[in-house]
Amino acid sequence: MAKQKTYALGIDLGGTKTLAAVVDVTTGEVIASERKRTNATKGQEYVSQRIIELSTAALEAAKLPHDAGIIAVGIGAAGQIDRKNGVVVDAPNLGVKDMSGRGYSTFVVIFVGTGIGAGIVQNGRLYSGFTGTAGEVGHMIIQAGGRICGCGGRGCLEAYASRTAITKAIMAEIHHGRDSILASDVEFQLKEGETIIRSGLLADALNHGDALVTEIITEAADYLGYGLGSVMNFYNPECIILGGGVIEAIDLLFERAVHRARITALSEPGRKTTIIRTKLGDFSGVVGAACLGAEAAGFTF
Amino acid sequence: MAKQKTYALGIDLGGTKTLAAVVDVTTGEVIASERKRTNATKGQEYVSQRIIELSTAALEAAKLPHDAGIIAVGIGAAGQIDRKNGVVVDAPNLGVKDMSGRGYSTFVVIFVGTGIGAGIVQNGRLYSGFTGTAGEVGHMIIQAGGRICGCGGRGCLEAYASRTAITKAIMAEIHHGRDSILASDVEFQLKEGETIIRSGLLADALNHGDALVTEIITEAADYLGYGLGSVMNFYNPECIILGGGVIEAIDLLFERAVHRARITALSEPGRKTTIIRTKLGDFSGVVGAACLGAEAAGFTF
Repeated sequence: MAKQKTYALGIDLGGTKTLAAVVDVTTGEVIASERKRTNATKGQEYVSQRIIELSTAALEAAKLPHDAGIIAVGIGAAGQIDRKNGVVVDAPNLGVKDMSGRGYSTFVVIFVGTGIGAGIVQNGRLYSGFTGTAGEVGHMIIQAGGRICGCGGRGCLEAYASRTAITKAIMAEIHHGRDSILASDVEFQLKEGETIIRSGLLADALNHGDALVTEIITEAADYLGYGLGSVMNFYNPECIILGGGVIEAIDLLFERAVHRARITALSEPGRKTTIIRTKLGDFSGVVGAACLGAEAAGFTF
Repeated sequence: MAKQKTYALGIDLGGTKTLAAVVDVTTGEVIASERKRTNATKGQEYVSQRIIELSTAALEAAKLPHDAGIIAVGIGAAGQIDRKNGVVVDAPNLGVKDMSGRGYSTFVVIFVGTGIGAGIVQNGRLYSGFTGTAGEVGHMIIQAGGRICGCGGRGCLEAYASRTAITKAIMAEIHHGRDSILASDVEFQLKEGETIIRSGLLADALNHGDALVTEIITEAADYLGYGLGSVMNFYNPECIILGGGVIEAIDLLFERAVHRARITALSEPGRKTTIIRTKLGDFSGVVGAACLGAEAAGFTF
């Protein structure tokens, strides 16, 4: 007999977009969802209001049966937003259910997006650490004294390998007169208020052999690889799962990061750790948040 | 009633010295021990023979009752020796019993010695990772593309903050004509075949205000702090315990590393992680190895 449907509300508060979704946590199915731009710069009150609006809209759109309730609300947020605006965060944008980690009991999921977030799953359960903030792989120091990071520190992985970092590096070169297919696109993007270059544009530029984009993606991939190598050496997980639009869209970024990670790590973890890329898609964050909320509320999968 | 005495043999194969000890694993008491210089450069066969000699001598010296047997042999080794000579390693030099981790269920112990080793204890048990090599904090990348490390990689923490790294940095400056109280001592040391400057000499030089030693220890402490900060951000343990002769003897190294770690880590782990220094002493490795061996053999503490 199929498990009875059980609903939870998941909210994925990202650096760029916020999603709210009603999720059947027994299957991971998204019943209804709403999304809007986060506009984090408008402050905490604005963002809170946004979450309420989106949640209300998703609940209305879900048209749940009269006897069905929401057992939990889970919120996953980009760390940067958390720290700037004081939003409470229980977990990174991590889908512990319905994703490629199935079959591995101990793994690390790393999302390369506006920032770099990660979740550690140990024996099938999220390992949240002492203060609930475990998995901040984006704020591991890989270049002591290096680039200034959004967290206020220097030399964090996120300052080198996130989509924000890639965008900044490309923009800086273009502003210094470097030639690139992206030059006009990027200026257009910026006028529209974008703070990141979309993965599709980066992938297109690579496919056209754009030298600047190739260079910057290669550099970011190497740094990402150093970060992965550090995780493999310190935590020695069975598997690392990489996700996020830029990873999903750009083979060079994934493949070179894996190569760099394997030669950076010590021989055993370097050879034996499984590193996979997964098409987690747009809903991974909300589904993960809903499932974690449900788990915290006592629901067992 | 007191637990019945249960004996295990512990071997601590360090970069500099090897210790063998018969340990009562119910109390952590060292019944008898023997130690000799490791001389790892003489090769695997030599080192293996050395371990057998030391073990035999420790067992003889222990004069165990006729009805008492050794339930397990545990060996802890410096990672570097492992990788160079193929010595099998089950665990880093980690004492999980009779040390300051008591009272914390999830903590990381970091030893700064010839290399930098660590052990992760989760819910009171050693977390050894997928390939049994978890805890290689010394080979987390903190300066991508930086100093060459003994592991063959570049930019590892160990290449910046181990006693070997501190020695090399001081020696290099002295050879370039830099003045230091240590100049004559260090040359004497090297003639005697030492590859590291002893903690006592470093502490004395600091107490005398030696500018070179102060500079190099400060630099090493900062790097160590970046490594600790990375561990706090990624793994978010409740407690980090620092040990090893150089940490135990040199307040500046410990205090500055803790300061750097706290400002490097994100706010929650930065404020809330307990970071302590412990006088683990010479026997921590053998006691830890014996206890881990006993645990692997089914003994419960």
